[in-house]
Amino acid sequence: MSAAHLGIVRVLTSDDREFVGTHGRVIAARYGIATESRCIPGQPHGIHDADTEALAVPKIVELARDLAADGAGCVLISCAADPALAETRAAVDVPVVGAGSAAAAVASGLGGRIGVLGLNDAAPRPIADLLGDRLVASVRPDGVRRTTDLLEPGADERALAACRRMVDAGAEVILFACTGLTTIGLADRVRAEIGVPAVDAVLAAGLLASYALH
Amino acid sequence: MSAAHLGIVRVLTSDDREFVGTHGRVIAARYGIATESRCIPGQPHGIHDADTEALAVPKIVELARDLAADGAGCVLISCAADPALAETRAAVDVPVVGAGSAAAAVASGLGGRIGVLGLNDAAPRPIADLLGDRLVASVRPDGVRRTTDLLEPGADERALAACRRMVDAGAEVILFACTGLTTIGLADRVRAEIGVPAVDAVLAAGLLASYALH
Repeated sequence: MSAAHLGIVRVLTSDDREFVGTHGRVIAARYGIATESRCIPGQPHGIHDADTEALAVPKIVELARDLAADGAGCVLISCAADPALAETRAAVDVPVVGAGSAAAAVASGLGGRIGVLGLNDAAPRPIADLLGDRLVASVRPDGVRRTTDLLEPGADERALAACRRMVDAGAEVILFACTGLTTIGLADRVRAEIGVPAVDAVLAAGLLASYALH
Repeated sequence: MSAAHLGIVRVLTSDDREFVGTHGRVIAARYGIATESRCIPGQPHGIHDADTEALAVPKIVELARDLAADGAGCVLISCAADPALAETRAAVDVPVVGAGSAAAAVASGLGGRIGVLGLNDAAPRPIADLLGDRLVASVRPDGVRRTTDLLEPGADERALAACRRMVDAGAEVILFACTGLTTIGLADRVRAEIGVPAVDAVLAAGLLASYALH
C-alpha cells in the first residue's frame, strides 16, 4: 500500500468541515485509504448550469494542482458531471478520477446493459458518453427532483420501483447518478430485492482511486 | 464483507492445481476475497481461434452455473477475450465479470486516452469495443508474440519502450491485455518510470468483483 493519499475536489464552497468530508469518509471507510477534501472558492451553490460550470473549471484545475503539490497520489473530482476532468488531467501528473465516468466505468465492467437512476430524466453527459449504447434507460424516482426529496416518506420505495422498471426493460446493472442515493442506502436493497448490482458514483470513484494509489 | 466467494472460470484444461489457481491467488492477495478456480474440460490448449472459442462457450456457461450453484457470489471469466460473457450473464443470477472488459472499464475510469499492450498488434475485440475512440494505440513489445517471450532477456525493457511510445502518442493509461505482463511486474515500472497508471486484466477483474461481492 502506497503512503500517498487521495485528494478530493468538492465542487462547491462550504465552511462545514463535516459536510465537506462526507465523500472522503465513505471512501476511507470502504477502501482504507487516507483522503483530504477541499472546496473550490466562491461557489456556495456549487455547479448547477453551464455558466457555473464554466466558472468552476479553472478553480478545479487550480485546486487539483494544489492537492497534487501537497502530496496527493491521485485526485478525485467528486461530482457525477465530471467538471474540468480533461483540463485537470492535462494539468497534473497524478491520475485524476471523475465520479461520473468512474461510475460508468465500474458499471460497464459489471454488466452489458446499464440503467441510470438520478434526479433528471437524462443521464449526466459524461456517463452517457462513456456508456454509449450500453445505456438502456435513465429515470428519476416519481416525485423526486432534488436530492432532499429522497428523504421524504416513501421515496425509497419509489426509487426501488424505478430501478425495477429499468431491470424489466433489460438493465443488468443500476448506476446511481446522485449521491443522495448513497445516503439512503439504496444499493443494498437493489441487490437484495431486485438481484442486480448497484453502482454508486462516490464508491466507484473511490474504488478506481484505490487501484491507482496501490 | 459478504461471506460469498468469487468463482473463477479458467478457459483451459489443466490438472496442475498450482497453475490453475494463479489468477485466484493474485486476486485473493490483493483484495482479501476468497476465490475458487475451476477449468473447462477437454481444452488443454485453451482458446486460440474462433473454433476453439465456439467449442468453449457452452462449457464456460455450464461451469459458471456450477460455480454459482455452489455459492459463488460473483463469477469471473478470466480471459482478456471475454469468451461467453453475454451468454453467461444471461444464464446465472450473480454478477459476471470478464477480464477484458473489466480492464477496459477500469482504464476508462483512470484516463481519457488508453494504450493497449498485448501479444498482438490489435487489441482484443471486447476491449476495443468498450474503449471505442478512447483507444489511441495498440502494440506488442518488439520480438514478443507469445507470453513466454516476455521471460526472455531484455523483454521487459522492450515492453517498457512500447509503453513509452504509446504515452508519447497521447495515452494517459496503459492497459495490459496479456497476463504475462503481470508476471514480470511491469505495472510498477510503468508507473515509476513513465508516470502513468497501468491496468492489469486480472487485477482489474478482481477489483470489480470485490465491488460486486461487498
